[in-house]
Amino acid sequence: MPIEWTGSGPDLLLQVDRNRPEPLRDQLERALRESIRTGRLATGERLPSSRALARDLGISRGLVTECYAQLQAEGYLVTRGGSATRVAAAAHPPAAASPTPAADQPLRVDFRPGIPDLSRFPREQWSRALRRACRDAPNELLACRDAYGDPTLRDVLAAYLRRVRGAATDPGHTVICAGYAQGLQLVLRALIDEGVRVVAFEDPGDPDQRAVATMLGLDVVAVPVDERGVDVAALAATDARAVVLTPTHQSPTGVLLAPDRRQALIAWATARSATVIEDDYDAEFRYDRAPVGALQGLAPNQVALIGSVSKSLAPALRLGWILSPPHLAPAVAHYKQLADRGSPAIDQLALADLIESGHYDRHLRHVRQRYAARRTALVEAIERHAPAVDLGGLAAGFHTVAHLPVDADEQDIIAAGRRRSVGLYGMSAYRFDHNRRPAQLVLGFGNLTPAAIGDGIESIADLLQPS
Amino acid sequence: MPIEWTGSGPDLLLQVDRNRPEPLRDQLERALRESIRTGRLATGERLPSSRALARDLGISRGLVTECYAQLQAEGYLVTRGGSATRVAAAAHPPAAASPTPAADQPLRVDFRPGIPDLSRFPREQWSRALRRACRDAPNELLACRDAYGDPTLRDVLAAYLRRVRGAATDPGHTVICAGYAQGLQLVLRALIDEGVRVVAFEDPGDPDQRAVATMLGLDVVAVPVDERGVDVAALAATDARAVVLTPTHQSPTGVLLAPDRRQALIAWATARSATVIEDDYDAEFRYDRAPVGALQGLAPNQVALIGSVSKSLAPALRLGWILSPPHLAPAVAHYKQLADRGSPAIDQLALADLIESGHYDRHLRHVRQRYAARRTALVEAIERHAPAVDLGGLAAGFHTVAHLPVDADEQDIIAAGRRRSVGLYGMSAYRFDHNRRPAQLVLGFGNLTPAAIGDGIESIADLLQPS
Repeated sequence: MPIEWTGSGPDLLLQVDRNRPEPLRDQLERALRESIRTGRLATGERLPSSRALARDLGISRGLVTECYAQLQAEGYLVTRGGSATRVAAAAHPPAAASPTPAADQPLRVDFRPGIPDLSRFPREQWSRALRRACRDAPNELLACRDAYGDPTLRDVLAAYLRRVRGAATDPGHTVICAGYAQGLQLVLRALIDEGVRVVAFEDPGDPDQRAVATMLGLDVVAVPVDERGVDVAALAATDARAVVLTPTHQSPTGVLLAPDRRQALIAWATARSATVIEDDYDAEFRYDRAPVGALQGLAPNQVALIGSVSKSLAPALRLGWILSPPHLAPAVAHYKQLADRGSPAIDQLALADLIESGHYDRHLRHVRQRYAARRTALVEAIERHAPAVDLGGLAAGFHTVAHLPVDADEQDIIAAGRRRSVGLYGMSAYRFDHNRRPAQLVLGFGNLTPAAIGDGIESIADLLQPS
Repeated sequence: MPIEWTGSGPDLLLQVDRNRPEPLRDQLERALRESIRTGRLATGERLPSSRALARDLGISRGLVTECYAQLQAEGYLVTRGGSATRVAAAAHPPAAASPTPAADQPLRVDFRPGIPDLSRFPREQWSRALRRACRDAPNELLACRDAYGDPTLRDVLAAYLRRVRGAATDPGHTVICAGYAQGLQLVLRALIDEGVRVVAFEDPGDPDQRAVATMLGLDVVAVPVDERGVDVAALAATDARAVVLTPTHQSPTGVLLAPDRRQALIAWATARSATVIEDDYDAEFRYDRAPVGALQGLAPNQVALIGSVSKSLAPALRLGWILSPPHLAPAVAHYKQLADRGSPAIDQLALADLIESGHYDRHLRHVRQRYAARRTALVEAIERHAPAVDLGGLAAGFHTVAHLPVDADEQDIIAAGRRRSVGLYGMSAYRFDHNRRPAQLVLGFGNLTPAAIGDGIESIADLLQPS
């Protein structure tokens, strides 16, 4: 049953305006598409003849004809034989527009771990490095053809990580990636190809990393962490052939992997033909002594090191690197190619420039002092306002662990903190079994001023101590 | 059996130099690490006492002690009880440095498809947009927290794609990604969660895209493409519940999906609860008329549109977008979060700026003229030098298909072209079964000047015609 053209006049439904810069034909096309999409013109509905519509709108008939032809080519309209033009059945209305999500209430003080001092991102230096990269990048580089990443950046990183992290570097086994999360996926995929089915993670550890392994179909096993780092004997008792570790500053407990455990770990990896994935996430920041060199330097055939600028510059740059064991490097680069065809070339060149120019080192020295001061502010605030609370972990990074009273409930304290507009984060989120004992908070202080730290701790101190 | 300290004197093995800016301790540490790694100091070898080494090198004993302690913490050295310091067993030498790959011989004229005119990348405008983004990005944005991507860019893209591609856009269902390859993975992962196991691809089509689906564990089926686009009846005969299409300009044949097939496709998707993935890869470039609007605008609940700036600006930017069906959007954003925690924030802001400022439109108008001229140059060169060859596909994009004589052999022609330093690419690489019939070449002309096109065609014309 044919439906006729609706509306008191097409000019009400389809508004075209000669005074707008947009060509009349584009206006008419868009208006017709929108009317069909929103259901104002229904499926099967018959459109006026091109002659009639042209007359009603005061435009040329040829313009209407072109417009009908265009929308017919796109599938919005159908014309069968010599009969009238109608709205096609395929033109479905979209679902309702997405609701605007309620904005999170901003917290007065947010101890969220893992966020560096965003106010110190070296905007001016990064901008200049980008400008030079835009100016100097060879045309071929804009085609993004090297799956390993930009050769200049790989050379610069090899020298830098050798010097600063004691890593055993080779630009030919280095793959540039979009930060740690992607790096982990690429290495795990390469290991899956080698027959790895089970991967061990530190417990407690970052739950998002375990989610990545699970997504890839791997079995995930927990290995406990004590005050000397991951328990290698417990690791050896699993059937894992890969383990993801934070040996320099365990995330989140903050402990350092002990020397004999390093030995045992490499012995295990060698005997089992296993791979250690070293998450070198905040090694730049140690305040009491030189940072411990990367485990990768000790056994580059057994260890894949993954680092990034997320903590040293800003998470939003999404740039990282993988120092791959030589035998895995081609597979890691292959999966980088499949994942996204390589990281953005201009950003890669800019990072190479920032490191080469010495601005990266200077930036790190500068923020290291700031983080040390913030850590001191946190330690002092706890001593002053909540002296019963022990803080754990090395003088390193920009988070620490607060040990709560034995009868404390993490979730209660977190909820109470939020009511006072203070963001708190519990250790249970990092545990495999989410049990809440012993009750601990993981306190990030990287993106908080000393004053905010003092204010935040003071306003929740009563929650942290035995009542 | 203890091995003693080797070498005629430690100062030969371990060189420290007071005149270098690097602190002596760092020099010594690095020298020891390198000696252990390269095997000059062997496993189990006993090091001189700190007193002896300090005397030999003319440095303080405390410095040597600190250095030994550092390397012991890192696992390079072991000290058991009061006995001497030895090289640890875990310290393995790395594999030999990777060989430098032989550089590809550069081709005089390379008809590789898919590369835009890299010489016209708007370096100055992109650099300025980056500078403004570096200056104006709010601190919070540097933390990279929105899995959907930067809200400003999503708003700008929604308006742009509605205007230019006739798409049905909603910033709340838009996810920013690192180009098409990643976008495809994110959508396929979301579909796997919905139970999709089989995905159809156009035959011929891009083999890299099929590789992505295979990597994710999906079964891949071929659907033939004829001169009216993909064969929807053949698609309906498969058990695919998703299909990846290039409806506006089929890749690589260059045909347009016919209106009745669009209808049939949407009817199929609706009846089968299937999803169409629209690869909107070069829709900006049509030279004879306005480009056909996106299929997505017709059925936004059934179609996921994936676009990028790889063809419009440069592949190396690695920025793209997914207009997701509303019900899939949360899963797509979730997998983006898992994949790499989001695309680089400053790049996203710069793209929003480039589009908003009108520079993006102006750039497209400029290069569209250039591509049209290059296409004309190719058509004319074929007419002049190889008149027996038919060129297929729309007056669009920056590749075309050359139909070769029936008895021609693609691989022979490609090899002969390479010997003349002309890069040619065969249709068989795009086919599911790699059969070489009918023999065709896919000729990319986006990154070649008209002179290079004429030169290239002239120098291989004899290969393309019946002998």
